[in-house]
Amino acid sequence: MALCSERERLLAATPRLARLELNSRETSDLEMIAVGAMSPLQGFMTRSDYDSVLDHTRLKSGLPWGVPIVLSLKPGDSAESYKEGEDVALYGENEQILGVLHLEQKWKMDKQDEARKILRTEDGAHPGCQYLKSIGDWYLGGRLSVLDRPRYEKFNKFRLDPVDTRVLFKTLGFKSVVAFQTRNPIHRAHEYLTKVALEICDGLLIHPLVGETKGDDIPADVRMACYQMLLENYYPRQRVVLAVYPQAMRYAGPREAILHAICRKNYGCTHFIVGRDHAGVGSYYGSFDAQAIFDEFSPQEIGITLLKFENAFWCRKTGSMATAKTSGSAAEERVMLSGTQVRAMLKEGKIPPVEFTRPEVARVLIDAAQNG
Amino acid sequence: MALCSERERLLAATPRLARLELNSRETSDLEMIAVGAMSPLQGFMTRSDYDSVLDHTRLKSGLPWGVPIVLSLKPGDSAESYKEGEDVALYGENEQILGVLHLEQKWKMDKQDEARKILRTEDGAHPGCQYLKSIGDWYLGGRLSVLDRPRYEKFNKFRLDPVDTRVLFKTLGFKSVVAFQTRNPIHRAHEYLTKVALEICDGLLIHPLVGETKGDDIPADVRMACYQMLLENYYPRQRVVLAVYPQAMRYAGPREAILHAICRKNYGCTHFIVGRDHAGVGSYYGSFDAQAIFDEFSPQEIGITLLKFENAFWCRKTGSMATAKTSGSAAEERVMLSGTQVRAMLKEGKIPPVEFTRPEVARVLIDAAQNG
Repeated sequence: MALCSERERLLAATPRLARLELNSRETSDLEMIAVGAMSPLQGFMTRSDYDSVLDHTRLKSGLPWGVPIVLSLKPGDSAESYKEGEDVALYGENEQILGVLHLEQKWKMDKQDEARKILRTEDGAHPGCQYLKSIGDWYLGGRLSVLDRPRYEKFNKFRLDPVDTRVLFKTLGFKSVVAFQTRNPIHRAHEYLTKVALEICDGLLIHPLVGETKGDDIPADVRMACYQMLLENYYPRQRVVLAVYPQAMRYAGPREAILHAICRKNYGCTHFIVGRDHAGVGSYYGSFDAQAIFDEFSPQEIGITLLKFENAFWCRKTGSMATAKTSGSAAEERVMLSGTQVRAMLKEGKIPPVEFTRPEVARVLIDAAQNG
Repeated sequence: MALCSERERLLAATPRLARLELNSRETSDLEMIAVGAMSPLQGFMTRSDYDSVLDHTRLKSGLPWGVPIVLSLKPGDSAESYKEGEDVALYGENEQILGVLHLEQKWKMDKQDEARKILRTEDGAHPGCQYLKSIGDWYLGGRLSVLDRPRYEKFNKFRLDPVDTRVLFKTLGFKSVVAFQTRNPIHRAHEYLTKVALEICDGLLIHPLVGETKGDDIPADVRMACYQMLLENYYPRQRVVLAVYPQAMRYAGPREAILHAICRKNYGCTHFIVGRDHAGVGSYYGSFDAQAIFDEFSPQEIGITLLKFENAFWCRKTGSMATAKTSGSAAEERVMLSGTQVRAMLKEGKIPPVEFTRPEVARVLIDAAQNG
């Protein structure tokens, strides 16, 4: 955030500046840059970082980085009015002034190239390709002075910045903290994986992504109600922190897993869970691509220890949750429901088996499915 | 092991050498030295290593090392007939020739000093103090030439040397392997901890100690029957290796935990489980002393990643195994039986609750308790 006097000087200048309205993803990114969640980024990427991320999955400095953090013009907008070396006033979707971009560089990007390298597909059905289609052809890069943070109606008591989580972890005496990224309700499978992780770490950060997701994902407020219900009933309160993660989903699978991991390091976490098809969508990525991509880097470069898990299920043979790594049972002894099955059950008001989900969570989802 | 020609030369010489009969612990140690399980040791410790282990918990070279690996004279035996610079023929308890000690150094040790520093007690009730009482006052140190390995009636197909386990792990494609040291049957609590470990490692080595234990520990053949029953029914066979660990127990708690960890590194393991009161006996050590001692060393020095766990129990609230780290439930919702309770049940032929132990394991123990 800009200092007080600088803030007033910049605020006073904004009416005379070229202006740009940020979309939801860009607003999330601006906030994450402002609070240090995307450290070492101090603004939207200039071309050298952008190219380096596309071609080498690293910032120009060498730090592993998965996806571009970029500011785009609207489709059809001319880049003429944005001059390198000048400031640009940035507004949120509701006309709120957010900050000033000290424009260093503007360039016309190649959407196909970005899609191929970051999303590994050019298929128009991929939500990441749809996003690229929705924006203009120009990116503006440069350092940011953030004047006001985006304001939200929801989850404000769960909005913890990296500085907040770091202090909190210290206060709670956590020497090791594992972060769990999620954009879904937590059923038994993920409850199990977070608890495995918690056995080897002092603390657990349940860190649901609440930035923009695709339309058919379960809304964040329903998910938050599920998490709270679950934590109240089935987790030890003094070891678990629930906070929201403001990033927008890219659905970039392996590339996005790197972003998710590095940002959680910035929140003070020491461990990060990477499950099957992390940040994936449809069948664009192999089940373990998002785990394998980390092999391209040394553990020191990543700087946060990865816990790579397989899908979990209830195993009738052992009477416990397990994965293929810990259960020798046959398929028919495993309780694994498909997303489609579960959605159908919830819509009909049926509670899925307790081996699949906790009844308290099912009830929140049934209410949402029937009233939503 | 000595090379063929050297072996014959040494064998031929043994009748003319001073001779020493090894006790059970020393025989185990000789074997472990011979197969590289105690690498870098190449023989029984000389005084500089011994003193360094007592005073600094390290070999003279600096490598972390918890307990002395030493060869003792019998009580009342004179050290006169053992001359520094000469060879000593070493025999097993059954008159089997085991090897030759190239005696470098003999010295009179201070049992109180060793007990205080290694066992952290001089209490005569501690099995380690009883052992010290059972041996003479002199230690003989020097390099070993092993001529014949101790022969065993039992568990021969489970006797895997470090070279065997390393090859096996490679063949099975394990990049990470966690070792579980145990001298007890595995009930649900330890099954759970090994499975937590297996979720984050490719393979699991169940590595029960079968060297000498105190008289009231459950005999190794009963335990082996329990492990086999458990693995057959409740573990994925392709990820778990069962092999015996020939060391004799010291019951030295934290000090012995270091030995257990370093030796498992020699077997090719990357991770090692340290539970509550590891290698402890009675109430000589704090519950987490054997975990805390590793904080005195850097992870690089130890060279094997420690998984430090708390006691596990069945949690009725969540319907799953848990520890205090993962369960918020009240004490009355936890199924935790004392060893005394379990022994009493087994003796009466009663199967403990399935939340405590698998019925197949209980049946093996009941048979042993009633017929043993």
